[in-house]
Amino acid sequence: MALSKPSAERLSRLAHLLEQRHDRHTPVSSTELERLTGWPSHTIRKDISALSLPETVSTTAGYDSHLLATAIRQSLGFGEETQNCCIVGLGRLGSAFLEYTGFTDSPFTLCAGFDSNVNRIEILKASVPLFPTFKMKEIIPRLAIRYAILCVPPEQAQNTAIRLADCGVAGIVNFTPAIVRPIEGVEIEQVSIVDVLGGLAARLAAT
Amino acid sequence: MALSKPSAERLSRLAHLLEQRHDRHTPVSSTELERLTGWPSHTIRKDISALSLPETVSTTAGYDSHLLATAIRQSLGFGEETQNCCIVGLGRLGSAFLEYTGFTDSPFTLCAGFDSNVNRIEILKASVPLFPTFKMKEIIPRLAIRYAILCVPPEQAQNTAIRLADCGVAGIVNFTPAIVRPIEGVEIEQVSIVDVLGGLAARLAAT
Repeated sequence: MALSKPSAERLSRLAHLLEQRHDRHTPVSSTELERLTGWPSHTIRKDISALSLPETVSTTAGYDSHLLATAIRQSLGFGEETQNCCIVGLGRLGSAFLEYTGFTDSPFTLCAGFDSNVNRIEILKASVPLFPTFKMKEIIPRLAIRYAILCVPPEQAQNTAIRLADCGVAGIVNFTPAIVRPIEGVEIEQVSIVDVLGGLAARLAAT
Repeated sequence: MALSKPSAERLSRLAHLLEQRHDRHTPVSSTELERLTGWPSHTIRKDISALSLPETVSTTAGYDSHLLATAIRQSLGFGEETQNCCIVGLGRLGSAFLEYTGFTDSPFTLCAGFDSNVNRIEILKASVPLFPTFKMKEIIPRLAIRYAILCVPPEQAQNTAIRLADCGVAGIVNFTPAIVRPIEGVEIEQVSIVDVLGGLAARLAAT
């Protein structure tokens, strides 16, 4: 299945929205999905139609939320099992993400934090275990961590990403302002406030 | 000019990368841009060709970095002038963003922070002035703030976004895990770690 990146991200987001609904089996119409997501309903229908969904997902009253979410997750490559993540770099941004409540009801579980500063690890309070960075090679495979959220100082971003790839991480979300150049065997997504703002500004200029 | 969102974001990111280079007028080839950004050079060329650039930008040796960056910024709707931003909600995430170094060399300037907790504002150390949220209506127009980075608790996200639109903000980057439904007159971009991870996972599944 070759989904475009924007389509994959929309579907992932849609699944997440559906998972947060209380009435898990109440049918949702595409109009309701439009209201919920803010995207045009034809975009949503197009995204959904690119997946091969079981027929039971769609009824005349709309989509079964729970079945649709599950089907999307399966199409996107993971089922019921949770995906383990860690945060690397526990400065202000990284330690703020330790408290991020958005993981609840998502297929991702935050299960560790790493920082090169051992004092910081001892002082920080967190609901997940924290480790010194030199233990990544041991801990990441042991906890089956597939994703890392990179929050180290910008000058350490590239080297830390290389080490994470070496520890077996499959995907890295780079929250540092530094660019991480491509690394063999790992998918990297850069999240930069400045680029998000730039995209917003470009859309405002285009409308 | 109707740029797609991914194209606008890539161009904005490219301009930002070029602005960070020290040799501002040294020509960059598309191969070098490929190495710098990690995107295929044909994608970069296609993005650039969608803009109407002055001929001086491109020479046989490559693009003039400074002229290209400026031309991109102008095509994307803003020139030399800086765009003012604020952070709304100064909990752990919002206060971490107060220290974000990525604004340097970008067309965006962080110029205020807001929080409804007056004690927090007094305690926090920041290089920009901090104000209580009830002063947004006065401060946002006075400081010509066009963009807001939303970091309030999720249950306050929608109402705060409505108030921001009412204060004249043109774009909102929503960093809360809550979905902000569309609001007339304001562009909203949701940034969710879980959705970024979902997109990464989908790409990994597709490859």
